[in-house]
Amino acid sequence: MKKLIALLLIGFLTVQVQAQNTDEDAFYIKDIYNTALTQGQCYNWLDYLTNNIGGRLSGSPESLAAVEYVKQMLDTLGMDTVWLQPCTVPHWVRGEKEIVRIVNSSSRGSVDLPALALGNSVGTGYSGITAEVVEIKGLDALEKMKKNALKGKIAFFSEPMDPTQISTFAAYGGAVGQRVYGASRASKLGAVGVVVRSMTTKLDDIPHTGVTVYEEGVEKKIPTFAISTKAAVLLGDMLKTEKVRIYMRSTCKMLEPKISYNVVGEIRGSEKPDEIILVGGHLDSWDVGTGAHDDGAGCVQSMDVVQLFKRLNYKPKRTLRCVLFMNEENGQAGAKAYRDFSMENKEYHLAAIESDRGGFTPRGFTCDGDETIFKTKFKKVTRWLPLLKPYNIDFKKGGSGADISRLKPQKGLLFGFWPDSQRYFDFHHAPNDLLENVNKRELELGTAAMTSLVYLLDKYGLE
Amino acid sequence: MKKLIALLLIGFLTVQVQAQNTDEDAFYIKDIYNTALTQGQCYNWLDYLTNNIGGRLSGSPESLAAVEYVKQMLDTLGMDTVWLQPCTVPHWVRGEKEIVRIVNSSSRGSVDLPALALGNSVGTGYSGITAEVVEIKGLDALEKMKKNALKGKIAFFSEPMDPTQISTFAAYGGAVGQRVYGASRASKLGAVGVVVRSMTTKLDDIPHTGVTVYEEGVEKKIPTFAISTKAAVLLGDMLKTEKVRIYMRSTCKMLEPKISYNVVGEIRGSEKPDEIILVGGHLDSWDVGTGAHDDGAGCVQSMDVVQLFKRLNYKPKRTLRCVLFMNEENGQAGAKAYRDFSMENKEYHLAAIESDRGGFTPRGFTCDGDETIFKTKFKKVTRWLPLLKPYNIDFKKGGSGADISRLKPQKGLLFGFWPDSQRYFDFHHAPNDLLENVNKRELELGTAAMTSLVYLLDKYGLE
Repeated sequence: MKKLIALLLIGFLTVQVQAQNTDEDAFYIKDIYNTALTQGQCYNWLDYLTNNIGGRLSGSPESLAAVEYVKQMLDTLGMDTVWLQPCTVPHWVRGEKEIVRIVNSSSRGSVDLPALALGNSVGTGYSGITAEVVEIKGLDALEKMKKNALKGKIAFFSEPMDPTQISTFAAYGGAVGQRVYGASRASKLGAVGVVVRSMTTKLDDIPHTGVTVYEEGVEKKIPTFAISTKAAVLLGDMLKTEKVRIYMRSTCKMLEPKISYNVVGEIRGSEKPDEIILVGGHLDSWDVGTGAHDDGAGCVQSMDVVQLFKRLNYKPKRTLRCVLFMNEENGQAGAKAYRDFSMENKEYHLAAIESDRGGFTPRGFTCDGDETIFKTKFKKVTRWLPLLKPYNIDFKKGGSGADISRLKPQKGLLFGFWPDSQRYFDFHHAPNDLLENVNKRELELGTAAMTSLVYLLDKYGLE
Repeated sequence: MKKLIALLLIGFLTVQVQAQNTDEDAFYIKDIYNTALTQGQCYNWLDYLTNNIGGRLSGSPESLAAVEYVKQMLDTLGMDTVWLQPCTVPHWVRGEKEIVRIVNSSSRGSVDLPALALGNSVGTGYSGITAEVVEIKGLDALEKMKKNALKGKIAFFSEPMDPTQISTFAAYGGAVGQRVYGASRASKLGAVGVVVRSMTTKLDDIPHTGVTVYEEGVEKKIPTFAISTKAAVLLGDMLKTEKVRIYMRSTCKMLEPKISYNVVGEIRGSEKPDEIILVGGHLDSWDVGTGAHDDGAGCVQSMDVVQLFKRLNYKPKRTLRCVLFMNEENGQAGAKAYRDFSMENKEYHLAAIESDRGGFTPRGFTCDGDETIFKTKFKKVTRWLPLLKPYNIDFKKGGSGADISRLKPQKGLLFGFWPDSQRYFDFHHAPNDLLENVNKRELELGTAAMTSLVYLLDKYGLE
């Protein structure tokens, strides 16, 4: 009987303690949100990063200025250590303003199309290329074409992003192969150049750049450009009734690789320093626009996680690391360098959170992990949902992010911050990815969501 | 034993049928979303309503043009009946561009502040008013002031919207009393005029108008203006160190009431025509800006629900009514006329859905109803959540909307479409409430969410 009473008491006390913790957590998370919404620094930092520094393509002067700037900002936050982690990045330059021109068409004469050379593309030479256009409705359609079917032609990849996908990232995933591999595949069929419909669901005059990859075994690297969605519709319409020739020209060029850096800041954990919690985004961006959403937002949110903890005087039990990765856009040299460093040092990332889907209103986090641990650890995380529901935060299974996914073998949990995706591709890789298209409150709510998750991970771990 | 088998069989068949229905519903809802995102008309209609017609204050020529336009659009959709429902609306006019000017301050000389007269305010007369400013930090602070404390003064209500509220509507609710009742309360203490900090969490130069109400028993109606949040901060800072006098002038005026109209379109139910499902928004807007989010968005979404059903050849079992209400902003004459009509005809609204929180990305629906029926009917609705979760749609208890809440005695369920609220008050009642600040996909997703809910309500009812 005494034993029973003792057991009941222990049970009762446990419930009490848990209830207290939950209240305490709810108050703490409310504090985090209040502070983020009134004393967050992310928007100010993003203002500097976008408007004072600008677009930050790997190897560019701006990318190095950005390294300097965020290092200084992390230094001011009083972290235990802030260091630069070297990596060798490709150095691609856009050169002169590119031209994509429909020449002497029978219906419309000559028309300049809004265009951007794709990142890593070869140039056309100063004199440019003129050739007839062949429309190809995506990579699947190309697979069915005969050898030499594109000989001497410019391939026009015209598959739109599927507007019926609720997640615009799913729509992007379905169409972006043309941009990444279109040049390689078309080259094998004899094409001399490529134009691709921009990756956006919006119908407008803004071209969207992004990386192209020349696959192993491609004999001839051919130049490849994005044209705006309206230009793609125009071109498609013209091709229904007439032959169209295009003149394309770009002096873009891949220069020699350069040394660049990830910026890493660390607060050493007071109790379990060997369990690392990482927050991060990527510091590089495309050269057009100022990389406000992609991924200035993710960088300043990650830095603001540190700032909020410092302001709230929270001392993490586990090691908190803020990592601003270099070269996500066209090589991921920074992600590889960080992975190599971490593996060599036999580190364990209990969790990593990447923010690289824009600074929009939060919906929650996607979560990924090694299949041997995912189910149990994810279950633990979902138990925190009642604490996060008041802030409209949910968890779902799904990929984390390009810069942290290489940490999966360490068997921690990998999170991707999940903002609402509807507007992201209006600005993605485009000249309008500017601060004016970032909403301050939405950005701050993302910071608060990330900080709250780090707080719970740090306090409770994942065992 | 036979009985048992029979029972088991019935149970099995029921489960089968339900499972089939669920699949069928999932496919149908997918169809609704696909159609909304590819053949929705809401954005085109909103373009016309905002850019061709413009701001639509009750009694204005634009408000009558809007009545004509949406009636024509509903007529083209082939509804069973479309009619105009008369109501008598206040007719307030802004007059000449208003002036709010700090005069001859010792620190800054004279400064013009971005300002808008509040709707229904009296004017100042042509010569304007000049008086010393007294800052009052909200209505609660005013309650503690002595009689005649404001004698001959201009009251400056400076309480900001609370930025730490996650729902900006909650923050609005906490601060808007100053705008609505500030003039009445300050007048009782002897004030000759009022300026109010604009209702937005954003710090900028844009003033936000909105209704003011002269309460019963107020002897003297005094003029009341909104100033931008930056102007409010400036004024507050100056008042810390010096006396400030303001000159305010507006020729705004309340004219004689006018006849205006709700626009009502109906598809008669094929099986239960006496059970009405209403979708609606309000057609009037403020005169500044073009009422794109408030509430052009809600109108065109409601109309697009009808368009989608027509396009999908869906014939509702219950009566579907699309109601575009007049005069939500400064009197709610349309809502009252509709309520009176509905009550006199002993109608039963099984459900009503109002969209009046902007055309932003959907989070779900708030739901309200008479307390005698709410719990059971809401429970039924929440059973549909698995069908809506793929579209990020949730239900929560909460108010529905100003135009439909008077239908509560009919004991149906009242829904408010619930979009993300973070950006709404950047544009609310302000010159920048323009189409360019509405995202097409976000708007269409709202239409799809509303249509899906109507589909489920129509198919299954709420018994």
